[in-house]
Amino acid sequence: MSEYPVPFKLDVGKAGLIVVDMQNDFVRVGAPMELPSCRAAIPNVKRVIDACRTAKVPIVYLKFIAGPRETLIWTWSPTLVPSDKCCWKNHKRRYADIGKEAEVTDIVEEITPQSGDWIVEKYSYGGFYETNLHTILQANHVKETIILGAAMPFCVDDTVTGAFDRQYRVFLVADATGAFDEEFAKNSLRRIAKKYGRVVNTDELIREMRSA
Amino acid sequence: MSEYPVPFKLDVGKAGLIVVDMQNDFVRVGAPMELPSCRAAIPNVKRVIDACRTAKVPIVYLKFIAGPRETLIWTWSPTLVPSDKCCWKNHKRRYADIGKEAEVTDIVEEITPQSGDWIVEKYSYGGFYETNLHTILQANHVKETIILGAAMPFCVDDTVTGAFDRQYRVFLVADATGAFDEEFAKNSLRRIAKKYGRVVNTDELIREMRSA
Amino acid sequence: MSEYPVPFKLDVGKAGLIVVDMQNDFVRVGAPMELPSCRAAIPNVKRVIDACRTAKVPIVYLKFIAGPRETLIWTWSPTLVPSDKCCWKNHKRRYADIGKEAEVTDIVEEITPQSGDWIVEKYSYGGFYETNLHTILQANHVKETIILGAAMPFCVDDTVTGAFDRQYRVFLVADATGAFDEEFAKNSLRRIAKKYGRVVNTDELIREMRSA
Amino acid sequence: MSEYPVPFKLDVGKAGLIVVDMQNDFVRVGAPMELPSCRAAIPNVKRVIDACRTAKVPIVYLKFIAGPRETLIWTWSPTLVPSDKCCWKNHKRRYADIGKEAEVTDIVEEITPQSGDWIVEKYSYGGFYETNLHTILQANHVKETIILGAAMPFCVDDTVTGAFDRQYRVFLVADATGAFDEEFAKNSLRRIAKKYGRVVNTDELIREMRSA
Repeated sequence: MSEYPVPFKLDVGKAGLIVVDMQNDFVRVGAPMELPSCRAAIPNVKRVIDACRTAKVPIVYLKFIAGPRETLIWTWSPTLVPSDKCCWKNHKRRYADIGKEAEVTDIVEEITPQSGDWIVEKYSYGGFYETNLHTILQANHVKETIILGAAMPFCVDDTVTGAFDRQYRVFLVADATGAFDEEFAKNSLRRIAKKYGRVVNTDELIREMRSA
Repeated sequence: MSEYPVPFKLDVGKAGLIVVDMQNDFVRVGAPMELPSCRAAIPNVKRVIDACRTAKVPIVYLKFIAGPRETLIWTWSPTLVPSDKCCWKNHKRRYADIGKEAEVTDIVEEITPQSGDWIVEKYSYGGFYETNLHTILQANHVKETIILGAAMPFCVDDTVTGAFDRQYRVFLVADATGAFDEEFAKNSLRRIAKKYGRVVNTDELIREMRSA
Repeated sequence: MSEYPVPFKLDVGKAGLIVVDMQNDFVRVGAPMELPSCRAAIPNVKRVIDACRTAKVPIVYLKFIAGPRETLIWTWSPTLVPSDKCCWKNHKRRYADIGKEAEVTDIVEEITPQSGDWIVEKYSYGGFYETNLHTILQANHVKETIILGAAMPFCVDDTVTGAFDRQYRVFLVADATGAFDEEFAKNSLRRIAKKYGRVVNTDELIREMRSA
Repeated sequence: MSEYPVPFKLDVGKAGLIVVDMQNDFVRVGAPMELPSCRAAIPNVKRVIDACRTAKVPIVYLKFIAGPRETLIWTWSPTLVPSDKCCWKNHKRRYADIGKEAEVTDIVEEITPQSGDWIVEKYSYGGFYETNLHTILQANHVKETIILGAAMPFCVDDTVTGAFDRQYRVFLVADATGAFDEEFAKNSLRRIAKKYGRVVNTDELIREMRSA
């Protein structure tokens, strides 16, 4: 039983999955903006992705891109600068947990996108602001968005807000989403549940997908 | 001294003030979505407005509008329905603290807009989503936004996010902004200060406006 | 019989009317950007408005606003400058055909908005770019837009494009729409009919509204 | 000497190039929406691209994407349906002029994007509507957009309008841009020159880039 309200149930035929920013430079060990709780979420993220593939739910991966010249966001995330190249395209970095180099904006290898998935590159936190995410979802007749990934209370929260603004029912998968810290996580979930979308956990979501 | 970081100082010639949703149906006693902390903020809101008028800083008032037919937002704010008409245009309600009827979406009388101010009506939480706020600011050459009003962690936070996305430097005036509750207020300020804008208080802001 | 294709019929229960920029500074005699063909269109504009009121179709009036400081649009429309104040808010001008002063951005008096109508102020040509038009239409469950007014090939065409982008079926009312000149009018109608919406005339539209 | 007005000169350090929809399914022989004038424009498109590479002007390629489920645009472009798959991702077609199969949404091989270029996928005509084009240009400090490609009066015109709305100075390269037909081309250039941007030809633009 969820501790959060259940204002609506999932209609799997109208659903789309949005995997937020599960990219090396946020998730891998030694990343400039490493968030260990996002790494810990990988197994649940993978379970939701697999369930969506089985149910033919369209899957969109978001990627946060920075550079090549200074914009306001650099004020808040100093590792975006040229000397660090955090989240720059066409840049590789060595990560300790995989013991090799990888493109810093690539989705982590455990959940690599497959042919037929969509990839959306964005330059701000939220997935809908000045991207083609809304039109990809419309082209797939998506009305309900399952959202998870990296991380609360920034990129995930603003993607939830953007989905709500555009009239999508939101399902935020709490245990498949990382956070900057515990206090932020707790507040983001409470905030989302109060005014933006339904907060679910992975078991609950997959059960609902199968029973639909 | 502020407890928050000071990544930039105010350049008053580039500033614009955004007064978020200080309307009867959120602020007055007996309003369907009454938020007492927003009422308590009126004196500081008024001080900032007065300082902006003196400094010829453009002033924009946001108003949240609902109705007349159901959209997703009704799921989360049930008083928006026709029987309550919370935040409907052309609807009056009696409020105990002013002892008379007033339009539910009018700005509270203590800070009534004046000729030359702008009013922006919006149908979601954030002030920038599908409104003319960005173009009003551009027409006034505004690059820095002073944001305050009603309320954290919803309409104010999403207005901050929208300003950040559009490359405005944000100054969130903490003690001129109400909140749903204390815990949300604390977290919104922490979140904004970390990735979106500078958190200031009224004294600090006005001092900076005058010394500029 | 229309000379244009009929890809869909009007569903009046889903319709909304968008009256584009029928304001004094474009329409009245002596206006800085006077377009006589818009003045000639007033009777048909009025017929469509009356038919929409009878059928309870929501009505939105667009107004083009300029000033107070220079933006890119001044390059193309020099009368927007402070010395002329074309389309500035809170500015009056005397027009020969009505023999009196009127606010330059007011809708012409023959079709004055009524209580319950919506007014949308915009700073560019198209009615959807950075305005609340889309959310007003959503709040009224509008899916089909009837578009007319001032003028082709600029503000009307860009409003048509904006409606098409947002998945609204468009009905452009050719004989209730003015134009910069005849050649532009002919091409705009051909262009719209080919890729954006259905071109109708006033008789045809009203007949279809009544038979629905 | 150009026949069009010269409201501003190119500042090459602020420029970005937008190559509109020069993809196989519009340009190659036998494409479902073949536009021969776009194929004829390839040499001039290539000249502008080469000049931009030399001058380190950022280059963005737009691609129009359709499918996989019906949206309003199918009404106007019937070859977007599943049986034809015009402009669908991950679909190949044989084109007579290159004598081989190619991805239908790939940019024509004469002007293949290079590493460091940007590619923007869109689901409507204009390049700015619900895409990341604006944020890519901001990340590169672009203020002036050079626009060319396929085709007037649809995708090119709406990209021009979108650039104008967002305060970019536009340079439309007339002889590097195809059109649906001659009459549309003539009117698009006249319309753009009157209210949206500067119309140039390839020689004039390149000369101005070099003398800057």
